[in-house]
Amino acid sequence: MELVVYLAGQIHDDWRDEVKAKAQEKNPAITFVSPQTNHDRSDAVGEDILGKQPSAYYKDDAASGINNLRTQVLLNKADVCIALFGESYKQWNTAMDATAAITLGKPTIIVRPESLIHPLKELSNKANVTVETVDQAVDVLAYIFE
Amino acid sequence: MELVVYLAGQIHDDWRDEVKAKAQEKNPAITFVSPQTNHDRSDAVGEDILGKQPSAYYKDDAASGINNLRTQVLLNKADVCIALFGESYKQWNTAMDATAAITLGKPTIIVRPESLIHPLKELSNKANVTVETVDQAVDVLAYIFE
Amino acid sequence: MELVVYLAGQIHDDWRDEVKAKAQEKNPAITFVSPQTNHDRSDAVGEDILGKQPSAYYKDDAASGINNLRTQVLLNKADVCIALFGESYKQWNTAMDATAAITLGKPTIIVRPESLIHPLKELSNKANVTVETVDQAVDVLAYIFE
Amino acid sequence: MELVVYLAGQIHDDWRDEVKAKAQEKNPAITFVSPQTNHDRSDAVGEDILGKQPSAYYKDDAASGINNLRTQVLLNKADVCIALFGESYKQWNTAMDATAAITLGKPTIIVRPESLIHPLKELSNKANVTVETVDQAVDVLAYIFE
Amino acid sequence: MELVVYLAGQIHDDWRDEVKAKAQEKNPAITFVSPQTNHDRSDAVGEDILGKQPSAYYKDDAASGINNLRTQVLLNKADVCIALFGESYKQWNTAMDATAAITLGKPTIIVRPESLIHPLKELSNKANVTVETVDQAVDVLAYIFE
Amino acid sequence: MELVVYLAGQIHDDWRDEVKAKAQEKNPAITFVSPQTNHDRSDAVGEDILGKQPSAYYKDDAASGINNLRTQVLLNKADVCIALFGESYKQWNTAMDATAAITLGKPTIIVRPESLIHPLKELSNKANVTVETVDQAVDVLAYIFE
Amino acid sequence: MELVVYLAGQIHDDWRDEVKAKAQEKNPAITFVSPQTNHDRSDAVGEDILGKQPSAYYKDDAASGINNLRTQVLLNKADVCIALFGESYKQWNTAMDATAAITLGKPTIIVRPESLIHPLKELSNKANVTVETVDQAVDVLAYIFE
Amino acid sequence: MELVVYLAGQIHDDWRDEVKAKAQEKNPAITFVSPQTNHDRSDAVGEDILGKQPSAYYKDDAASGINNLRTQVLLNKADVCIALFGESYKQWNTAMDATAAITLGKPTIIVRPESLIHPLKELSNKANVTVETVDQAVDVLAYIFE
Repeated sequence: MELVVYLAGQIHDDWRDEVKAKAQEKNPAITFVSPQTNHDRSDAVGEDILGKQPSAYYKDDAASGINNLRTQVLLNKADVCIALFGESYKQWNTAMDATAAITLGKPTIIVRPESLIHPLKELSNKANVTVETVDQAVDVLAYIFE
Repeated sequence: MELVVYLAGQIHDDWRDEVKAKAQEKNPAITFVSPQTNHDRSDAVGEDILGKQPSAYYKDDAASGINNLRTQVLLNKADVCIALFGESYKQWNTAMDATAAITLGKPTIIVRPESLIHPLKELSNKANVTVETVDQAVDVLAYIFE
Repeated sequence: MELVVYLAGQIHDDWRDEVKAKAQEKNPAITFVSPQTNHDRSDAVGEDILGKQPSAYYKDDAASGINNLRTQVLLNKADVCIALFGESYKQWNTAMDATAAITLGKPTIIVRPESLIHPLKELSNKANVTVETVDQAVDVLAYIFE
Repeated sequence: MELVVYLAGQIHDDWRDEVKAKAQEKNPAITFVSPQTNHDRSDAVGEDILGKQPSAYYKDDAASGINNLRTQVLLNKADVCIALFGESYKQWNTAMDATAAITLGKPTIIVRPESLIHPLKELSNKANVTVETVDQAVDVLAYIFE
Repeated sequence: MELVVYLAGQIHDDWRDEVKAKAQEKNPAITFVSPQTNHDRSDAVGEDILGKQPSAYYKDDAASGINNLRTQVLLNKADVCIALFGESYKQWNTAMDATAAITLGKPTIIVRPESLIHPLKELSNKANVTVETVDQAVDVLAYIFE
Repeated sequence: MELVVYLAGQIHDDWRDEVKAKAQEKNPAITFVSPQTNHDRSDAVGEDILGKQPSAYYKDDAASGINNLRTQVLLNKADVCIALFGESYKQWNTAMDATAAITLGKPTIIVRPESLIHPLKELSNKANVTVETVDQAVDVLAYIFE
Repeated sequence: MELVVYLAGQIHDDWRDEVKAKAQEKNPAITFVSPQTNHDRSDAVGEDILGKQPSAYYKDDAASGINNLRTQVLLNKADVCIALFGESYKQWNTAMDATAAITLGKPTIIVRPESLIHPLKELSNKANVTVETVDQAVDVLAYIFE
Repeated sequence: MELVVYLAGQIHDDWRDEVKAKAQEKNPAITFVSPQTNHDRSDAVGEDILGKQPSAYYKDDAASGINNLRTQVLLNKADVCIALFGESYKQWNTAMDATAAITLGKPTIIVRPESLIHPLKELSNKANVTVETVDQAVDVLAYIFE
């Protein structure tokens, strides 16, 4: 049985590589997908494809449509969503991807540090499982295959 | 024609009263609903109903289920969602409610200050309309009835 | 705003009357519906309507279709489900009604004594809120209207 | 044509091995999945992954989220559900899995001893087929491939 | 609580009036809707509205779209479907309406004479309840309100 | 029984008033809704609410989100859609509204002149009924209430 | 691109073999599935698996659940449905399978002789395409691959 | 990860070949599908399969059902939709296919020349991304695989 796992969340460290390495060692039948993790490319993709926009606002607007198309295609394919929140940034895309996954009936794991328990409490409650470390998320994935 | 409008978003000023007063003057057929706006009650409701919990974490966990039940009941009833983001706090519940509304096919308006254009760009793109002021959101609501 | 609340669960004491009396005092806009609570009628309704069946098995089979039709009509109308488990009986209909409600996106409250925590843990986790007393369930309902 | 069959139900004997052996002999194109069948692991998985919890209640709560994630992933993949009820235990997870499968439009077979006809009559009526033995369930599966 | 009941089935006797009279006496909160019961009008409505068609085939084709629009509007509104089969005619519209109702999650009662048990066995099994007389169908409706 | 009818289509003559006058005379229980029919207001609403945009392209983009929110709210409320195509203009909004209605399971009537039979043949086939005049559309609506 | 085609309809001649032979010659990527086409086995399967039933009625009831499970599994897998009506028998299962397919959003072809135009006119209108011969249905299938 | 991309839009030049050549060079895992692109065959297919019809209107009607069946089968299979509008023709099928894709939750890219910005503004807003050239659409597709 093959699974597709969507890795939502911050793109400022290599947590996705860590998940992939640890999970695929145990279960090679998992394919991982994710939003664009190159931050500069993610911000610039609107102008990269559509050309120069009139201002920063329109540059953002152009990029967002293309990023959302990518996310929607890959999330539609996913069987499981893992959403990691870190301590910096607004991370509203992470909240958006996790909520979209849950609302579409896709089982979802949230990874967040202890410091974020309070502001994430309703989203944690809506998800299936909330853990504090990437290793714990990998353990939950592995449990599906036991 | 009667509409139910769910007002997602921060609970730290009286923006909901402003929306209600302005919108209902124009269109009395709108009923407004919202998450619990009494912050202390929202945080305490788990212990208020279920009794003392072992720690702050479990107090939060108990509250979140009850807050989510309330939100789910009222959002299911809503025809439109307005989600207001302010400059403070994580506001992940606002992102969660807006995304749930959009994913369920409910037309959604985001209100956010200019300073939040960049971090909200993907959620803005997924919503129907994004505005900067409460007055603009009321104008959009009024446009439905023109 | 009017709500319909489906009261799933055992039919061996008057807990529904208690919920109705307490909840409607606070919020007259709630309509309560429930499975057939007259146990003898529930077991006999197949033969009452369709006539004598060849054995106890077929008597049960005839009754179950009519009970399920009733439940499906009323659960389709419901905005919230409260499912009460007691200490006796198999109560599989209660588990069935609660799961159907949850799977259809209807917010659900489970009421169960402390003794049933372990066998109900997965269903409790799938529901929005689990409480131990009817009074607590009424408090959760009232919270929707605060 | 390949089918995935989810085997819900009690985990206290080797009925799943019996189904698999008999069914795959006839139809090698069937993949079987199931909830965690190691009872101790199922009860402990919350603490195994998340660490020590404050009490038995919270241990159960932690395990249930992980068990439900597993079930939801595998049930989403399934084309058919077989749910076996035995004479012991509450078996509310079995009722929950069968009802979730039925509500999601997945054809479902219930296996139960004659002694459980009465308490399971409404769930039997909601399922496609109810049989008394594992052999009969295997015969129904085989019939799909005739 | 108000219910809308769609009365599918043959239009060659006054069984609908009988259902309405008996049911509304017990439960005035039921509204009954149905396909066009004037057979001549049902066959002619395409030409009545769209004008003369090139042949009987096109006359039928023109009528069928308008009849289906009517049925779809009214069935979408319905909470329950009663489908009556008689001993004459093909009655494929009755089978079509009953199946559409069931597939859309609307509880359905089939009324058919004993002589039709065998050819209707799969559709009877898919419906919630099958009875032999109009009085029995009215009894099932009344049971919802007990 | 009350119905909501969404009137999609061109906004360059008073066909909607004609439909309303004729239909409500026969069936006062119909409420009609429609896209913004004031063409100037429809084009300007983005700048009217959000302020001056950098170019005609962005003026259009701002207006379209608000027009789509209006349409989505009203179409979600509708039980029937009537979509009128005239001989001028691209009328892609009419095609969009009709297709959205059909895909959401809402019965749909297309009104178009004989000259448009060929380019509209696939959309006509997907709709329930296609007629040539407003009077015929009103006749189809009236048929629902016969 | 692989397609699964469900062949609903009468089981009294070898029309399915004809479709398969002609279609697979042109497009080997089509898998055909169907209801049980051995009439005796279809009628007897309830007693074959569950044992002797009290009467013909209960024999039919036992068979129907198993036949419906088979149909639901295979129809869920299908991308296209072909439903053939002949001149004999009630053929309500054919009408039921075609309507279930259409309601689930599966493109459907009806094959029926000219003599059945009138009684099948509403179901023909609800389907995508109606033809008179198996060869025409094969031509429509082939057109998908052009 | 394999994707199916549906190419809606005009059939009067070889834009589809251009998309395929450019996209498959970068990502061989994409399968492209489309409506019938042979215009004569698309118009004639009704008579080709069903025989001579009484007039041009009925020839069109016969063709449209077969074209819609083809489209529905292939669009159901698609993960992404690209809809290209050119400067000639009504192109209502393009608007219909794009809207059906969007309403079914399939991410959609619109390609249109600058001259069509205004009449397509609402459909552009409803789609995920709008671009002006085939190369830009291919860039968006490629971005999914980055």
